[in-house]
Order: sequence, then C-alpha cells, then structure tokens
Amino acid sequence: MAGSTFGKNLKVTTWGESHGAGLGAVVDGCPAGIEINEEYIQTFLDRRKPGQSRFATQRSEADKVKIMSGVFEGKTTGTPISLVIENTSQISKDYSDIADKYRPGHADYGFDAKYGFRDYRGGGRSSGRETAARVAAGAIAIKVLETMGISISAYVKQIGDISINYDNFSLEESRNNGLCMPDKEAYEKAAEYVDRLKEEKDSTGALVECIASGVPAGIGEPVFDKLDARLAMAIMSIGAVKGVEIGDGFDVVRIRGSQNNDEFCMDGDKVAKKTNHSGGILGGISDGADIVIRAAFKPTPSIYQKQHTVNNKGEEVEIEIKGRHDPIIAPRAVVVVESMTAITLLDLILTK
Amino acid sequence: MAGSTFGKNLKVTTWGESHGAGLGAVVDGCPAGIEINEEYIQTFLDRRKPGQSRFATQRSEADKVKIMSGVFEGKTTGTPISLVIENTSQISKDYSDIADKYRPGHADYGFDAKYGFRDYRGGGRSSGRETAARVAAGAIAIKVLETMGISISAYVKQIGDISINYDNFSLEESRNNGLCMPDKEAYEKAAEYVDRLKEEKDSTGALVECIASGVPAGIGEPVFDKLDARLAMAIMSIGAVKGVEIGDGFDVVRIRGSQNNDEFCMDGDKVAKKTNHSGGILGGISDGADIVIRAAFKPTPSIYQKQHTVNNKGEEVEIEIKGRHDPIIAPRAVVVVESMTAITLLDLILTK
Amino acid sequence: MAGSTFGKNLKVTTWGESHGAGLGAVVDGCPAGIEINEEYIQTFLDRRKPGQSRFATQRSEADKVKIMSGVFEGKTTGTPISLVIENTSQISKDYSDIADKYRPGHADYGFDAKYGFRDYRGGGRSSGRETAARVAAGAIAIKVLETMGISISAYVKQIGDISINYDNFSLEESRNNGLCMPDKEAYEKAAEYVDRLKEEKDSTGALVECIASGVPAGIGEPVFDKLDARLAMAIMSIGAVKGVEIGDGFDVVRIRGSQNNDEFCMDGDKVAKKTNHSGGILGGISDGADIVIRAAFKPTPSIYQKQHTVNNKGEEVEIEIKGRHDPIIAPRAVVVVESMTAITLLDLILTK
Amino acid sequence: MAGSTFGKNLKVTTWGESHGAGLGAVVDGCPAGIEINEEYIQTFLDRRKPGQSRFATQRSEADKVKIMSGVFEGKTTGTPISLVIENTSQISKDYSDIADKYRPGHADYGFDAKYGFRDYRGGGRSSGRETAARVAAGAIAIKVLETMGISISAYVKQIGDISINYDNFSLEESRNNGLCMPDKEAYEKAAEYVDRLKEEKDSTGALVECIASGVPAGIGEPVFDKLDARLAMAIMSIGAVKGVEIGDGFDVVRIRGSQNNDEFCMDGDKVAKKTNHSGGILGGISDGADIVIRAAFKPTPSIYQKQHTVNNKGEEVEIEIKGRHDPIIAPRAVVVVESMTAITLLDLILTK
Repeated sequence: MAGSTFGKNLKVTTWGESHGAGLGAVVDGCPAGIEINEEYIQTFLDRRKPGQSRFATQRSEADKVKIMSGVFEGKTTGTPISLVIENTSQISKDYSDIADKYRPGHADYGFDAKYGFRDYRGGGRSSGRETAARVAAGAIAIKVLETMGISISAYVKQIGDISINYDNFSLEESRNNGLCMPDKEAYEKAAEYVDRLKEEKDSTGALVECIASGVPAGIGEPVFDKLDARLAMAIMSIGAVKGVEIGDGFDVVRIRGSQNNDEFCMDGDKVAKKTNHSGGILGGISDGADIVIRAAFKPTPSIYQKQHTVNNKGEEVEIEIKGRHDPIIAPRAVVVVESMTAITLLDLILTK
Repeated sequence: MAGSTFGKNLKVTTWGESHGAGLGAVVDGCPAGIEINEEYIQTFLDRRKPGQSRFATQRSEADKVKIMSGVFEGKTTGTPISLVIENTSQISKDYSDIADKYRPGHADYGFDAKYGFRDYRGGGRSSGRETAARVAAGAIAIKVLETMGISISAYVKQIGDISINYDNFSLEESRNNGLCMPDKEAYEKAAEYVDRLKEEKDSTGALVECIASGVPAGIGEPVFDKLDARLAMAIMSIGAVKGVEIGDGFDVVRIRGSQNNDEFCMDGDKVAKKTNHSGGILGGISDGADIVIRAAFKPTPSIYQKQHTVNNKGEEVEIEIKGRHDPIIAPRAVVVVESMTAITLLDLILTK
Repeated sequence: MAGSTFGKNLKVTTWGESHGAGLGAVVDGCPAGIEINEEYIQTFLDRRKPGQSRFATQRSEADKVKIMSGVFEGKTTGTPISLVIENTSQISKDYSDIADKYRPGHADYGFDAKYGFRDYRGGGRSSGRETAARVAAGAIAIKVLETMGISISAYVKQIGDISINYDNFSLEESRNNGLCMPDKEAYEKAAEYVDRLKEEKDSTGALVECIASGVPAGIGEPVFDKLDARLAMAIMSIGAVKGVEIGDGFDVVRIRGSQNNDEFCMDGDKVAKKTNHSGGILGGISDGADIVIRAAFKPTPSIYQKQHTVNNKGEEVEIEIKGRHDPIIAPRAVVVVESMTAITLLDLILTK
Repeated sequence: MAGSTFGKNLKVTTWGESHGAGLGAVVDGCPAGIEINEEYIQTFLDRRKPGQSRFATQRSEADKVKIMSGVFEGKTTGTPISLVIENTSQISKDYSDIADKYRPGHADYGFDAKYGFRDYRGGGRSSGRETAARVAAGAIAIKVLETMGISISAYVKQIGDISINYDNFSLEESRNNGLCMPDKEAYEKAAEYVDRLKEEKDSTGALVECIASGVPAGIGEPVFDKLDARLAMAIMSIGAVKGVEIGDGFDVVRIRGSQNNDEFCMDGDKVAKKTNHSGGILGGISDGADIVIRAAFKPTPSIYQKQHTVNNKGEEVEIEIKGRHDPIIAPRAVVVVESMTAITLLDLILTK
C-alpha cells in the first residue's frame, strides 16, 4: 500500500532511502504567499544532521536541501513544494555483513516478511535518515504556523533516570548542548551517563517533550480526526517512538477526576483554564491552552555488542553491527517531533 | 471537515449523537462471505452497555443493533454494512442547566469555538455513547480477523495504584467482574477504591491493556502508515484516552538497548523472538509476536462536585453536573479498545 | 475495497441494496447552521421516485427519508448527517429466475467475478435504487450551495434523435412532464417515441444537461482534483452513464482554437467572458461562467425481449427479465445528476 | 487543498512547474520486484517530448528522467519511487508580456482568483509540461500491468472532420507519424489540415482513443469508485480534455437497449461477450472485454492571433501570445492518456 503520504489538506509525501540517490518530500496544499527559502529550511535540517556533537555519529551527510518547485520569487505559490536532499556519501560496504541477517530491534525481518525483498543498505525506508525529509517539510509547516502566531518547541526531558528540573529550564540551552536538554545540570549528568553507555557498547532511551503555543481553541475534528489522535499517529510514526501522551498522559491512571479537570476561567475577555492537565486538548479539540505532547524514544537498536539472531535462511546466527550509530536517538529526533507536530496542526487548521 | 471516517481499505464511518434519533456505523470494504448476524454484534454491544455493574450508570439504553445492508443470507456481500442503533430514552431535561456552561474536562468549549453552535444534549458527538457505533463495527472486524487466526483481548490492567498480578491472570474473570480486571484480588481492591471515590463524588483513571495474537509478520507500512502509528491514532481517538504505548512503552526511556532489543530465534521452522519488548511491532511493521498496546484513560470528567467554570457569555459561573455518570470510564471502554485495534489491523491487512 | 465514500472535505458515504432493509447516506463535513428538514429532502427524493409518470415503473417505493443525526433544532451541527430510507416493498420473487444468470448490460457477471458471491435481488449495490441515497445527500449540498448563491438545474436535452430547442426552453416544463424535457414540443415527440419503444419491449438512451450558476471563479485544484475531473468522476459514477462532457465537449474535436477560446471582457467591475465554450471551467478551475455538464445515459438494459446469455455454471442460456423497468433511465436520473454536481462543487468549495 | 495526488493504493503525486528547477512524480504503493530503469521510462517520455515532428514545438526540453529512490539492484522495492526531470531551458522572457494578462482558453484567471498570486511563467502547474511527470509515473504502472498480461495503447482517432478507417488500422503507423494516427491515409489528410491551420495561426482539437486489453473481469468498485468513474476523472484531469466516454459513449443517446446490450456467451470455458458496446465496463466493473475510452482534446488555446482579454487590473486589453506552441495538443497527449489509464487500472487492481 501507499503509506508515505501524511495529511489531508496539507499532504506531505516523503520518499528516499539512506543509500539511494537521495531523499525528499513533496508538500502539497501549503497556502500561497508564504516566504520560504533553502537557507531557512537548512537551519532545521542542520539540527537533525549527524556529527553535531560527541553523542551523534560522525558520518558526513551534507543534507543540503534543494527546493525544486512551488516557490516563485521567494514565496510559495500554493502548488506542491518539492524538496530534494541528495545523498553524498553512499559507501555501502558497512552493510554487506547484515544483508541476510535480521538485526534485533530493527524492521529487517518485517520488511522481508512483507515484501520478500529488502534494500538492506542502512535500513532502506526504515532508516532514521528518512526523517530528514519530514524535517524539510516540517520547516515549511512551522513557517506557516508562525504567520498565525503559533510556535512549537521540543526538547529532551529525560534520559535514563535523569530528568530536567523546570526551575532551570532554558530552551536556548537545549539548542546548544548535544543532548538537547533544556537544563544544564541535567545535561551534564546525562552526558556522563551516555558516555558510559557508549563505552559499554550500549545505548539509552529518552523522553522528548513538545509544546505548541498559540493554538486557538477549536482545532481538531470530533471522533476519528481528533487533534490528539492525529498527533499520536504523527509522533508514533517516527521510527523509534514506543509511546505518546498528551498533558497528564499516563499519570491520569493514578489521579482523580477532581484533580484532572481543568477549571475554566476568564483571562480578560478570553476563556482560559486555571491548570493544563488536559495538555491543551479536550475531546480531541484544542482548548486554547498550550498543546503538550511527550514521546518515548527507545534506545538505539544498533549496538556494538554481539547479539543472537537468525538470517533469511532460517539459521540461528550471531550478528555484530558495524558502522557508526548514535548511543541515543532522541536528541536528533527533537526537530523531527517539532516537524510532525507542525505538519499535523497545520493540516487540521487548514480544514477549519 | 469530515472526520468521522477511519481507515483506507476498510472504511468505518460513524454517525449519531447520544440524544438524537440514534447512532450507527457504515463498514465499507469488509470482505465478502463472512458470517455476521445481529445477535453476534449484540454480544459486543452488551459489554459496553451501561447498567451492567454497580460501577456503571443505570441509564436504560437498550443499544439494540440492526443490520440495514451488506449482509445477504447471513453472509457479508462485500458491500457496505450499515449498522443502526436507535436511541430509546432521550429525556433531555438533565442537560438544561449545562446548555450554556462549559463543563470542565469536556469538549464543550472547543465545540463552541469550532462551530459556534453545539448540541449540548449529552455531549453530542463527543459523548462516550458515540463509541457504541465503533463497537458494532469492531465486532465485524474481529469476526474477519478470527477467520485469519487472529484474536484480540483487552482488559483493565490498573486502576489508581492497584495493578493486576499476571500470576493471577484470568481473562474470564475480567469478563465477569464489573471492572474488567483479569485478577480477582486486584479487582476486589479496586472495587473498594472505586466505591470510595463514588461516595466522594469523584472518579478515577485506569490503564487498559490489549493483546492481539496471531498477527503474522509483515503487517503495517513503512513511514506514516506504520502499524503502531495507525494503532496510536485509533486508540487515542477514543474519547478519554490521554496516552498510548506499545510493548515496553514509556519504560524504554529508562532502559538500555541491550535490554530492549529482542533477539530473534527459530521456533521450529518459524522465525520467533526470545522476548517481546517491542510489543510485536518493529519499525512500524508487525514482527510476528503478540501486539501489546496500553491506553491511559482519564477519570470521568463529569463529577458531582461543584466546579468553577465559565459560560458562553464569558461569565465565570459554578456548575453542578447532574445525570448519571460512571465513576470510571475504562471498564466499559475495554471493548472499544478491542474494536479499534481490530479495525486498524484489518484495514492494514487488507492492503497487503 | 471501500468504494462507497465520495469527497474529501465533504464526505458522502452511501449504503444499501434495493432489497435489503433499506438504504441511506452519511454526509460528513457539512457546515454547521444550515436549515435542513425531512420535508425539504423529500421533495428531491420525490423527483427520483418511481411511478411518477407513465414512463416510469409503477413499483410502490415510498422512499421516505429519515434524518437520524447531525441536525439539532432544525439546523445542521457540523457533525455527520445520517439519512435512512427504509425499504417497504421487498418481494423478491421476481428475481428468482435471474439469480444464476448474467443479465446482458448489467454488472452481474462483474460482481460474481469480483466477490464470488452476489446479492441477486434487484442488482444489489448496482441497482439504480442506490441513487436515492445520493439524492438525499445531494439535497443537503444543494441547500448549502444556495446559501452561497449557487443554483443547479438539470434536464433531459435529447432522447433518441429528438433534441430540445432552446427557443422553447422552460425549466418549469421539465419539472412537470414525465420525461423532464424543458421543451413541450420536444417532449411530445419524445413521449411518442418512448411509448413506441415500450410496446416493442425496448428502451432508449438520453442526454442530460446540467447547469450550475453562480459558481465563483477559482474553484477546483490544479492537476488531479480539477473541478472537471471531479465532476467527471461524480457523474460517470451514476449507474448508466457512458459519457461526460464539459462546455463544447466532444465538439472541440471539430473546431478551431479561434472558435473555442472565450475572450475575457469586463462586465462592470467583474471579469466575464463573451462566450462560454469552456463550460465554466478552464485548466480545471472555474472561470466564473455557468458550469455546463452533459451526461450520456444508456438505454435501460432490462428489456422484456428474450436475450442470450450465460449462467454462473458457464452454460449458454436464454433469459427473460421480469419485474417492472422503465423504458428510459434519464428522467429519473436528472435529480441524481444535480445531486452529484452539488456534492462535488461543495466538496471543492469547502477546501478553498 | 492538496490536489496533486492521484489514487488510493497506488498513489501518484506530481510536482513542478514548466519554468522552475524541474518536475517529477512520487509513485507510492508500486509492488516490489518489478524491473524498472531510467532507459525504459525515457522511451515513454520521448513520445511526449516536444520537437518530435513538425506539428510539435521545437523547444529543446531534454526531459531526462532520474530515478531517485525505490529501485534497488534494478527492481522496485515496494517503497516510493521518486522520479525527477530537471528543467534545462528556462528562459522566461517570452512570458513577460502575459504576466498580468489572462490568456483566453487558459487557467490564468482562475489561478489568480484562487490564489491571488500566480507563477505566470508557462502556466505554472497548469502547463502541459506537468504531464511529463504523469508519463514517467505511468511508464511504471504500464510495466506492472504488463506482468499481469494487460496492455494499453492509445492513438489519435480523429482530427477536425478527419477520422481513421479501422480497415487501415496500424498501431505501428501511429507510433511513427507526427499525429499519432494509426491510418496512413487519414494521417496524410490530417497533416495537410494541421499545416493549413498553422499557417492561419490557428489550432485544432482531436479525439484520442485508448484500448486496455487483458483486463480481467471484476476490476472496479460498486458506487463511487467504479472503474469508469475513476477513468473519467483520470482522463478529464489531463489539461485540455473536455469530454470522456466509454464504449458506445455518447452514441447511447440514440440507440436502443436491444442494440446496446452485449449478449454474454462462452468462449471455450471463459465467459465472453458477442459485442463490446459497453467498452469493457458494466455497472462500473470490468466485464473482461477490452476497455475502450475516448477523450476529446480541445484545440491549443495559445494561438498567434491577436485576441481580446482583460488584465489583472480589470482593464480590457489585447493579447498576442508569443513562444512556441503546437497547433494540436492530442498527439503528444496520447502517451499521457495511456499513462493515466494505466495508473487508474493498477490502483484499482491493487485493491482487489
């Protein structure tokens, strides 16, 4: 089936493998008249790029985006925007050993079961590199949302047992440290932890939090296209995500209705809420408060330890993964979470 | 926008309000030749029906389903199956007081912001009663999956701080006690807790777990229509759900790659896994193990305590909700989780 | 596959067979606040109903529509509108003879090839009666378009070799005579022709023309969702239609660019065109002139003559079709053409 | 809205303008394991390319296609195939004069009314050049259909009053003469006619016929996604098409049921039909006979005569179109018709 298109009124179609000629996205349905250029999109791609810190692989992917259509004299025309990122380094030799083995924690076996055929180079479509196309598309959605007064920011909230302290919160800090944590102290502890895991040829999961501010009340559709339902799909579709929650999320299991209900109040002549347990969404429709989303990213499955697995001949074998892999996925995925949040929000806003 | 249709190859469209003439679903794309009748579907609706236990409201909704089309001589014909549930008791007087007030924890304000107009009787489309239509549709999907050797069962895993013990696990128990907990001991503790909350005019959240067994490897699409992404959307679209996780879910934040990776092995001539941290899905594609989904249900927002809120004239007011409301949502939603899981799985299987 | 839903922002899903419990439509995405009631919709259904003239069968289908949801205090709420028409006369005995024979000109063989199974009673989903659901849905779209100053009217332009003369054009006449021809003289000649065919146990095709006035310029999407492309799909999806054309239509084969181009001019401060060869659509986008669509309806395939065919055992057999069938399809289909035109237009307008 | 994606299970998304960096298509949902390479696709693009005959413009568009993804070791992988055609000659000066004038017969005015903004260079998305992307995508669909025994061929059947004679029919001839007519005699007469129009700074319409052979019975969905409905949309979405018909098409208006019905018979152990008035489709589902589609292409609207029009300031002005334009659109569109037919058929086959 065709599963590479997301959205209804804003349709984002991505394509490409990590080891083919390149990858890209087509953004269809973007409003006309929005200022967009390659430099602007590049700033988002650079946040996702490998080699930006000691926690990320040193692979040299240039990730240079090219706008192929849909922009005329610096502004969107309302027609499809095609974004292309050519692959520059495509040395495939690192993958020769794993061509017929199923890497634990990866989609290799599922792909073979599905297609009877697999592009084993770098995971093909299930490679994390696929998200570069989402980021390029997301940058455009973020720009459109900005014109509506909506801003989106994500960061790493927790790594292993190390959580940020909101008293130290600094979004700028998160943009500058290699783990995207908005709390310098937490970052330093987490950095030590990740360094230790790296030495131990292991990896760690992490929790990413994303806030969308300025979203007016009334966005989202009753029933299936609820704002939170669409966000859940968008975020869970990012490779390593195993959980998504909104507002109080899984904590609602333990708390009472009298604690979870946000009382409405007036803020001047605007309807507001005294608290935001709902995370900005009630009954699938935005309630005017900040949208609060959290995503659980699993540890990088490509670890350097010897692991047991099977190959495509049905033999039990050992596997040792080579190549360069990050000991943690989440920091590079922060901008992907922002992108998918923006694409989802804009899609639903454009239907209103 | 039109947000009441779910799925691509199996399209489920629901309609109806809790206080209109009725509600229903159209199931389009169901394979031909499947045996379906009203009695079979009714058994699923009866699990969702109010008044089944002391933890559920005693409202007398008959919830009798009628098959209007798509079934001929006891078998599906491949054409749309229309399911209608007429509303029998529609006394609206309980809602007169809240017609212009925004109930905390409800979508009332969002609906007004969106449409400038609202059917205030029982929450309209955002009423929990809308899920009856999903259950009727889900019963059909479950039947089709059965013919493929796939079975789905959900239950309440946790209420407040009370969790089930898997050593005591009995699915049958969960079908017989009013809280749908598959552990008699846990049920008894939880029953006490819920009774106490009811006395205190309060409510509680809960955790529902759903297992789909027999799903072959290879289901789901790379990128956006990943099996877990579609499940996340399906489950999050159920009214009170604030979080969805697959397999180890949010625990992945704390664990290491070496712990989270499931090693592949051979089980006779079949590829299998030694553990199931992935919850049966890797890279968005089923890996042949049980699919494990958990959903966090928030506490019933309709509580009998006096609450502060605003009305649609922008005045701060007090609200006291009347009518009959369950102190816990999850038990009646268990069958809704099964239904949405089945609809999602079948939709993706039909595309293969 | 699920092929019973039409539209993107206005989604119309139809269901039902001619001999089941009933048929209906779910209209999702209709704007809130539009006045709709059953009596209004009924006037459209009555135009399609059999037994209205001597050219139409005398079967007694009551075709009474019931609004099941989406309307509150006489106005649409923005949520799905469910429309149900119960079947009242379902005597199936007329069809016993054809259960295993493929009627020439019908979809019987295709259905068997597709599903391996067929509801042989009255053609199942391929029955003309399915269009009653489209008309009920179309009535709502027409009402919404009226609030935007758009009106739609269709009529029979030609039957056999008998064409209307625009000098005699009277839309009222077309609403009153049994052949829906807006020219009394043409009607009288055509009536004679159809009577003769009826005696000869034969049937005739006809040409339906539909005009949508008041459509502003700018409706339709470049490339695939062009207004004319979507209209072509909408109209061709009506059972017996074998051709669709816009404006000059097939005549463009014979004429020159200098004849076909409509020159733009100013009409006061509005852009207008001196002619309307384009039929109101240029490059798939409305140009502000009347939209002009024509549809060719084939002769009723159910004729009373003995015909050769095969049965589902692969034997060549003779077939004699019983029951009551119109000698001409088009007059009852006029309101279906209006309905599908309205649904298509509104869907594209709602995306703007 | 996002209107640049066609299809459900095979999704084709096109992008690009005639004067931007390039254009292309993403083909998502193509089955895995199909042999595809750039040379193969190029043969289709070359049939559409300008400058191939004296009836086509001599603009030097190289139209070289590059496969960017979805093909590995010469075979499709089941993931999206991205096809890019870079624009090589982009001298925009020819268009300076028409930047603010609405060309008669073009979508210029509609685009301005829709977006308030227009890429005036070469018509932007409404340029005929957009169809190059469809042809690249169509080549892939044609290849997949070939593996199923389905072949598709289109040709020009009529230009002005000059029709082909089927006694002289030669598909090879149509591939070799500049007007794509499969009858040498008709071609010679038509060539004279087109030459004369060219001298007179005028243009002509034409009729294209397309045959799909080998389509099994049972393809297409009842009701809205009928095979003929989807084909009508696909073909009408090609820029200059003003009419689409299937089988007897508009002739059904004049003929009787007894003439139009095709009697079924047995051909060995296969169900067949004695005639093919239906054009291979009954009730929207293929009946096993050849699919016969005809499309009416309007005359090229860009003619070199002085024409009256208005500009975007609301002034009546004269316009003289420069640049190079074909006096007839249809010959270069023949391969586009084949492409859209193939894409539509494959999409519906993949849902079966």
